[in-house]
Amino acid sequence: MIKYPNGLNKTYTKNTPTNIKNATKANLGIDFEDLINHTNKYYLEHNIACIYKKPTPIQIVKVNYPSRNKAKIVEAYYKTPSTTDYNGIYKGKYIDFEAKSTKTNSFPFSNIYEHQIKHLKTVSNMGGISFLIIQFSLKNEIYLLPTIKLVSLYNNSLNGGRKSIPYSYFQENAILVNINKINILDYLQVINSYYNI
Amino acid sequence: MIKYPNGLNKTYTKNTPTNIKNATKANLGIDFEDLINHTNKYYLEHNIACIYKKPTPIQIVKVNYPSRNKAKIVEAYYKTPSTTDYNGIYKGKYIDFEAKSTKTNSFPFSNIYEHQIKHLKTVSNMGGISFLIIQFSLKNEIYLLPTIKLVSLYNNSLNGGRKSIPYSYFQENAILVNINKINILDYLQVINSYYNI
Repeated sequence: MIKYPNGLNKTYTKNTPTNIKNATKANLGIDFEDLINHTNKYYLEHNIACIYKKPTPIQIVKVNYPSRNKAKIVEAYYKTPSTTDYNGIYKGKYIDFEAKSTKTNSFPFSNIYEHQIKHLKTVSNMGGISFLIIQFSLKNEIYLLPTIKLVSLYNNSLNGGRKSIPYSYFQENAILVNINKINILDYLQVINSYYNI
Repeated sequence: MIKYPNGLNKTYTKNTPTNIKNATKANLGIDFEDLINHTNKYYLEHNIACIYKKPTPIQIVKVNYPSRNKAKIVEAYYKTPSTTDYNGIYKGKYIDFEAKSTKTNSFPFSNIYEHQIKHLKTVSNMGGISFLIIQFSLKNEIYLLPTIKLVSLYNNSLNGGRKSIPYSYFQENAILVNINKINILDYLQVINSYYNI
């Protein structure tokens, strides 16, 4: 099992968000989303990939206009996302994934919507590259789980199997994603070898 | 110049949104976004492509919890979108586009953010398929403008050239997208022939 390098305490570029600057093993969980966004920003700036987090979907009910050009939303609600958090392009291929963090020793299927799993499957069937990235925050480990494995386990859970994926499964069947020396969660390197692209 | 078929008044499936059901030549402008979303839904249901509109980005400032499980956003503001409205996968390829409607006889560059044009260019350079879809609402015509042409005109505008793209340019250089008999704005058919995929 590969451990993170000590890079988290190294020098950062001016583009590193403050909360990643201060990241340590202890608070990595909180910064998981920032870590991915920071990584995607690095990929974009280095012309490696163009991958963005989608905005959180909001149902807007009421908007006021306190001044001529200023719209102030005064009543709105969170909506269920239709798809996944992240998508974009890498080596001409369509990339799509959901990122989740768990504080326990397993990833419960209740942490992801069924239609999100279906979406990942659709993308995969259409020739895209889709996967789940799971952070086990207490272990400070991040795994990439390809959709084909996720779907197989999920279908199994619907037929009376486990309603969660244990940590041990990830250790044996998923791919550990390391944070490299420049504090990038280099999941595309994993994609390179796993999907042979 | 090809005109729309009369399909807009034909029978609709139960999945057709109400506002498209009632669409006529007169109010098509209002329904442009719905038309694209309806088309994307059709593509998805028929396993042709998986393309979604991204949610509008919102900066949330204050959230109340009137009841235990209900979050009510009471102060929020619209944010500038980082990328474009639509993206997804078609024939394994990454698709990315912005859709705009204009009521005048030209498309002014002030209608699109510079970073959105840059984004379309990045996608195109990375091997994705990116473009603009423009509706001329008064003419009831919709055109697809490939990024390479958009960027060329935009760069020209920065060097003292026209600050807008005239309708006549679209007639001569862009690709008219028709609404087909089942009320689908079949822009992927245009993609097939233009990009030869």
